[in-house]
Amino acid sequence: MEHITSRSNRLLVHLRKLGTSGAYRRERGTFLCDGGKLLEEALGWGAEIEALLCAEGTVPPPLPPTVRAASVPWDVLRSVSPLETPQDILFSVKYPARPLPEVWTGGMVLDGVQDPGNVGTILRTADAFGAPGLLLLPGCADPFGPKAVRASMGAVFRLGAWSVSLEQLGAILRRSALPLIGAALGEHSYEVETMPRPAMTAVGSEGRGLSGAVLALCDGTVRIPMRQRCESLNAAIAAAVLLWEQRPRAFGKEQG
Amino acid sequence: MEHITSRSNRLLVHLRKLGTSGAYRRERGTFLCDGGKLLEEALGWGAEIEALLCAEGTVPPPLPPTVRAASVPWDVLRSVSPLETPQDILFSVKYPARPLPEVWTGGMVLDGVQDPGNVGTILRTADAFGAPGLLLLPGCADPFGPKAVRASMGAVFRLGAWSVSLEQLGAILRRSALPLIGAALGEHSYEVETMPRPAMTAVGSEGRGLSGAVLALCDGTVRIPMRQRCESLNAAIAAAVLLWEQRPRAFGKEQG
Repeated sequence: MEHITSRSNRLLVHLRKLGTSGAYRRERGTFLCDGGKLLEEALGWGAEIEALLCAEGTVPPPLPPTVRAASVPWDVLRSVSPLETPQDILFSVKYPARPLPEVWTGGMVLDGVQDPGNVGTILRTADAFGAPGLLLLPGCADPFGPKAVRASMGAVFRLGAWSVSLEQLGAILRRSALPLIGAALGEHSYEVETMPRPAMTAVGSEGRGLSGAVLALCDGTVRIPMRQRCESLNAAIAAAVLLWEQRPRAFGKEQG
Repeated sequence: MEHITSRSNRLLVHLRKLGTSGAYRRERGTFLCDGGKLLEEALGWGAEIEALLCAEGTVPPPLPPTVRAASVPWDVLRSVSPLETPQDILFSVKYPARPLPEVWTGGMVLDGVQDPGNVGTILRTADAFGAPGLLLLPGCADPFGPKAVRASMGAVFRLGAWSVSLEQLGAILRRSALPLIGAALGEHSYEVETMPRPAMTAVGSEGRGLSGAVLALCDGTVRIPMRQRCESLNAAIAAAVLLWEQRPRAFGKEQG
């Protein structure tokens, strides 16, 4: 295995940039992952690994021969990792080759969910509860950013997360003949018990909720009931309740 | 308002220690909070604020006369805050004077939930979904640690979170005549649809689940169904589904 000690090595510069710049990630069609657990998921799900760094003394699992692998001193690894608590492995992966489906049978839309940990957790939850995928409107955190990828616990390799425009979302809804039900903080047209199923659901930011433009695309709104003294739920928790309530019929019977 | 510039000022040393040491927090019966939003919650819920620091130029809301308030330069504030992204206000609050209830009508037990963000989010969710409180077994993150407090979004001022021993949990269950249902990752005795209601539920760590000692106290286990390809849910998401499913009957009708 190659050994790199210079922080200005071109591979390290590339990986560092993948960790910090969403524009660079999209340009290169590549994102950065950290840790042995995510590496296991990437290998298990056939993700196309490009390059890997590991701390001196760490032995990575067998890798495809096309992967450029290098060991680096711990302080150099820390200088590349965008995370507060880096793990002993960092690697880059090609974006999954998943075309945006034309027709949807459910799934979730995120609008202004800015916290990357929440975006990753919602992707993980959507995968667990049988949703066909996640649509992210402009203003959401990048699902391929390092914090979102870590929070997804590998769901990023299994379930599609597509950044779309409002126009694309509108076209998907028309083609799918699927109602879009928005999570509301106040006035609402449905209770959780009575909302249409299946539906696509939409969750907005914790503070402001869904934007007017997204509400205009909605066929109705639903309010998750709460104690009156509470203002809101964490966005990932609101998403989880809706994904849970919209889980496919008979879910858990065959999947159990 | 007092102005402090020395990082070794005794008030600053005290607040710094509240942010970093759980033992010191318990000894002093005081914890550290950050940000104007939490301050608003603390004032609104009658929490006993001890002291407050704000960045130069920040004007805090009117405070009770007993609160020691001081402005400090930003770099000094950052030197006191235990958080990666400090806000412009830091304050200390006395632990709420809440005796552990003898008899419970529901609620959740956490076992080995180590992530403070998850503990805070679970407290926030338990408050939203009408649970009477949270019981934390040894090995959980401190609900009064700064990351948990931030994630609780003020729920820490509204809902009780008690650290208890296994013996105390056993005594509560006997007195309450309430079943304890543990979240299981594999074999389980109940489906979500058929688990007893009301019940107290228990959630363990994401990796290992509930410990054997807690399972021994359980009257049964429930598995949240997932796609087979998923290993587990985020602990706060698993907790949310159980808290949602165990929400009090007619919840949201009167609370709506």
